[in-house]
Order: sequence, then C-alpha cells, then structure tokens
Amino acid sequence: MDLLDDVTAYLHDHIPLTAHMGVSVVGYDEKSVRISAPLEPNLNHRNTAFGGSLSTLGILAGWTLLHLRLKDAGIANRLVIQKSEMDFKRPAMGALEVVCSQTDLVEWNRFTKMIVEKEKSRITLVSEIYSSGEVVAVNEGIFVSLKM
Amino acid sequence: MDLLDDVTAYLHDHIPLTAHMGVSVVGYDEKSVRISAPLEPNLNHRNTAFGGSLSTLGILAGWTLLHLRLKDAGIANRLVIQKSEMDFKRPAMGALEVVCSQTDLVEWNRFTKMIVEKEKSRITLVSEIYSSGEVVAVNEGIFVSLKM
Repeated sequence: MDLLDDVTAYLHDHIPLTAHMGVSVVGYDEKSVRISAPLEPNLNHRNTAFGGSLSTLGILAGWTLLHLRLKDAGIANRLVIQKSEMDFKRPAMGALEVVCSQTDLVEWNRFTKMIVEKEKSRITLVSEIYSSGEVVAVNEGIFVSLKM
Repeated sequence: MDLLDDVTAYLHDHIPLTAHMGVSVVGYDEKSVRISAPLEPNLNHRNTAFGGSLSTLGILAGWTLLHLRLKDAGIANRLVIQKSEMDFKRPAMGALEVVCSQTDLVEWNRFTKMIVEKEKSRITLVSEIYSSGEVVAVNEGIFVSLKM
C-alpha cells in the first residue's frame, strides 16, 4: 500500500501532468501494474475521454511497470520511450484504468541481462485501457533502458 | 488573430488537459496548423518534455487542423481518432511547438468527398514536434470523420 502511494506521489511531484489527470497507481505485483484516473480532468469536447489522456495513460503504465520492476531487481537505469502506438477502440464514458502486464520471464531475463551486459536494452510492452468494464484503447510502447 | 484565440479558448474550455498544458494555437493557414506549449507544465522526472505531453500535442495538432479546415469547408462532422503512432527522436529541452500540414489537395478532396457522399471518411496526418529548433518527435494519426 505504501509503495503505491509512494510511486503515485513520485509521479505527481515529477510529472505534473499526472497530478492534473488525477492518476493513481492502484496495483503492482511485479509482473503488472494498474493505474487509474477519473474521467473529469480527462474529458474532451464530446464528454468522453480525450485521446491525449488515453495515450498518456498507456505510456505511463509501461514506464511505471519498468521503473518499479527494475528497482526491485536492483538495476540502476535510465528509461527512455522510443515509440508509442495507440489503437483507439471505442469512446470511454467513465473512469479510466490502465493495465500493463509483462509475464514472459524469458523475455524479461533477456531484457535485464542486456542492460547489465550491454548497457542498453529494448523491450516492447502492451497496455490496455479500460472504461466501464470494456477495453477502450490498446497501447504498444517500445522502451529503452540505459544502464547508469 | 481572433480565430487563433477563439480556437485556443475552445480547446481550453472543452479539453481541460490542454489548458493545464498551456497549449496555444499560434498559426493556421488552411493547409497547416501550429500549436505551442511551454515546457514547465509538460516536464518529466528528467526535466525534459514528458512523452505523454508530446503524444497529446501530436494528436491535438491533427485534430485542430481537421476541425478548422472542415469548418471552413462548411462540412458538419464528428471527428474521431482511430490510431496514433509516435516516434520519439530526442529529449525536448525547451518550449514545444507542433506543426501539422496537409498539402496534398487530391487527398484532401478525396477525404471531404467521402464524408459528404459516404458519411464517413478516413485521413492520415503527420505532425512534427519541435523543441529548440529540432524535431524531437513525429506523430502519425489516423482520423475518421463522420458526417453529422
């Protein structure tokens, strides 16, 4: 619980847009992270969620999962996003939740080994954004981690 | 000048995230739109521009160009974003400006004709995001316009 509050506070303090969006990190279990946001600060002119907010949540979920999991693994690094691809499926009419999972341990071990051995490693993560129980958007992000 | 102020006010009023980001529509000449934003509200934990802000600016530039140009053409429509692909090239260290241009008149005429005749049309727009005189990110957005 403290970890979730801490990482939420970190995001709000260091990425002011996340505070304005009302982002909260609500779940983390090493292989996945869940982040929620209310609809209101993320509305568009049609009273559905703004595409920019949805893209931001997708990017943020991938970044937060890597940040927490590499910290747990004791690997000091600098994370950079290289590419983000967003598919908008349907309008989001209610509160938002984004889930990013990375369950392939072979892929994870390749990723972390490359950071340590080659000082640079790349990983692709998929985040799904939900609203009112449905997937409203899917984000694929390519992140690069540089050894520090 | 009034048009630019009006559309900026429209964005701030209807998409609250754009007000928080300090977005201003600073140029429009029918074939292109320019939108600026200061760095400070769009910072990340590394004191460069947050990827979510850059993605949002890319989406917003495409949307605003279509919104203004279809209004000029007198075509009542509803715009929806279907896909957004963002390439992050380098860190943005200063104020941001995004430019979206659509200069292919044959493609534009196809797009508008399909809205009127088929009630639905799709167009791909590219936006470039600049900071300190360099391109820091390139966004490709696919937008769908539905006749109203």
